[in-house]
Amino acid sequence: MKLGIGDDCALLKIDPTEEIAITSDMLVSGRHLFPDASPEWLGWKALAVNLSDLAAMGAKPLGFTLALALPEPNPSWLEAFSSGLFVIANEYNCPLVGGDTTAGPLNICITAFGSIPRDKAIRRSGALEGDDIWISGTVGDARLTLATLRHEIELSKDDLALIEARMHQPTPRVNLGLALKEVANSALDISDGLLGDLKHILRLSNKDAEIFLERIPKSATLRKQTPEIQNQYSANGGDDYELCFTAPSDKRDVITKISADLNLLLTQIGNIKSMQHSAPEILIVGRDGKALNAQEANLLLKSFDHFA
Amino acid sequence: MKLGIGDDCALLKIDPTEEIAITSDMLVSGRHLFPDASPEWLGWKALAVNLSDLAAMGAKPLGFTLALALPEPNPSWLEAFSSGLFVIANEYNCPLVGGDTTAGPLNICITAFGSIPRDKAIRRSGALEGDDIWISGTVGDARLTLATLRHEIELSKDDLALIEARMHQPTPRVNLGLALKEVANSALDISDGLLGDLKHILRLSNKDAEIFLERIPKSATLRKQTPEIQNQYSANGGDDYELCFTAPSDKRDVITKISADLNLLLTQIGNIKSMQHSAPEILIVGRDGKALNAQEANLLLKSFDHFA
Repeated sequence: MKLGIGDDCALLKIDPTEEIAITSDMLVSGRHLFPDASPEWLGWKALAVNLSDLAAMGAKPLGFTLALALPEPNPSWLEAFSSGLFVIANEYNCPLVGGDTTAGPLNICITAFGSIPRDKAIRRSGALEGDDIWISGTVGDARLTLATLRHEIELSKDDLALIEARMHQPTPRVNLGLALKEVANSALDISDGLLGDLKHILRLSNKDAEIFLERIPKSATLRKQTPEIQNQYSANGGDDYELCFTAPSDKRDVITKISADLNLLLTQIGNIKSMQHSAPEILIVGRDGKALNAQEANLLLKSFDHFA
Repeated sequence: MKLGIGDDCALLKIDPTEEIAITSDMLVSGRHLFPDASPEWLGWKALAVNLSDLAAMGAKPLGFTLALALPEPNPSWLEAFSSGLFVIANEYNCPLVGGDTTAGPLNICITAFGSIPRDKAIRRSGALEGDDIWISGTVGDARLTLATLRHEIELSKDDLALIEARMHQPTPRVNLGLALKEVANSALDISDGLLGDLKHILRLSNKDAEIFLERIPKSATLRKQTPEIQNQYSANGGDDYELCFTAPSDKRDVITKISADLNLLLTQIGNIKSMQHSAPEILIVGRDGKALNAQEANLLLKSFDHFA
């Protein structure tokens, strides 16, 4: 990175063998952010969700811009926000290269840039029939935390302490994305819920999927909940920022090695199938090996609505 | 541009002889935007102010991301907003490559990318002693429009019609920036007021400036106002999105030719001087050839405060 903040633009020099991945996310108070969320968490999460998008394509972080609207100048808020932001920026070698600040209702807009060898980006459109479907880490804890904060579910203080970072301080799977560049046929990050997001891969790849409900990885805390809550939150919870990817079955050994190297759980939860009808479908297989009926499946497939 | 909206990131391929310029601006309702401003104007202006930053460094637009918070889904608003946005995107060959939408108080965040031959960007830090100081177009009409909308000044409907586009639909000086790459030693775009913005060049170049007040170019409409208003609005008005640049005096013929080629007024308004004290200063010379006293100059030098 050549020139940082202080001119009309930042300047980036790129290796000629690489191309640039760009992603932009906007976080708004009351919608993505609990109004009383700690500013450290906001800074952390705002950058982490963008790095998660870079990770999903196998890109290496290069830098980011930050545009910030704040109701009033607030040095202590800014200091706390920055401390969370720069934990992630430093961890993933992703410097702040420019930005904008203004007065207004709290709004955090980050645009992040990554580099990727030419034609090596992992696309959503690359899933092939017979691919295994994989997911990193566990899913559903962010949704369980939200339910607790909303008093929809009672969770002990200790249980909440074990999982709340999954909502407030997600870990972008940058190193996993880099490791998957030569392995995965398709990938995306789970921000709106596993099944809803998987549909994006299926739509762009013109494929169906079969998912084994019991294999979806859940934390010990989530496994204490009812089976309905477990299924709903893990299959459709949102805000998990794990990677869902597909890879040929002959890559299982490589993926197992990546899992060990990164000390990160990777679970094969299903398979890519040829598309049977005019639109992609997900066949959800229950514990008994039977597919869920349409009503049960529909409940699980409800996806996050940005204007709900 | 390789891959547009629809994956986790957009992908950009860059010519190896070039580097990338990046800029990000956030527009907020009530601050940058009149609440009843037409959505066409908002779309136009949101992209234009970013292209103005690219222009100030001599960069050629490559593409942009749009993150948008809207209070509610509003197809007719979006259609009008898009129509204004894409007038500018099409005019300057700058495609939308990705983005984000969310529910929230109206907020428009655009990050724009441009390409520039390596080491050819026009920096704010490059002004040299003896450089002429130039400005494109006229300045002060955006401020005069604002004053009229705020009922601080009475303007006839016809007069307002002549100038209001300067506030709502600014013209990014992209082609001027490209033409200045081999000509200007320093440049920036005037968003917060001519004298306040010029100070950024002086600070980064460690120079003083001498500005001839009467030479600052003003529209016929602004010239109908009192001398005080003329001076204040043209020297310090903000929101003009003209380019201010410095160039050696032996480039005057080249600059005159650029002015004719682009059919764009370019006016030499002063000179770069060596720095006399510990901080850069602007000496303002009045009609009588005498420098303004400290109090008069101070009034003109007040700059836009983002939290005022």
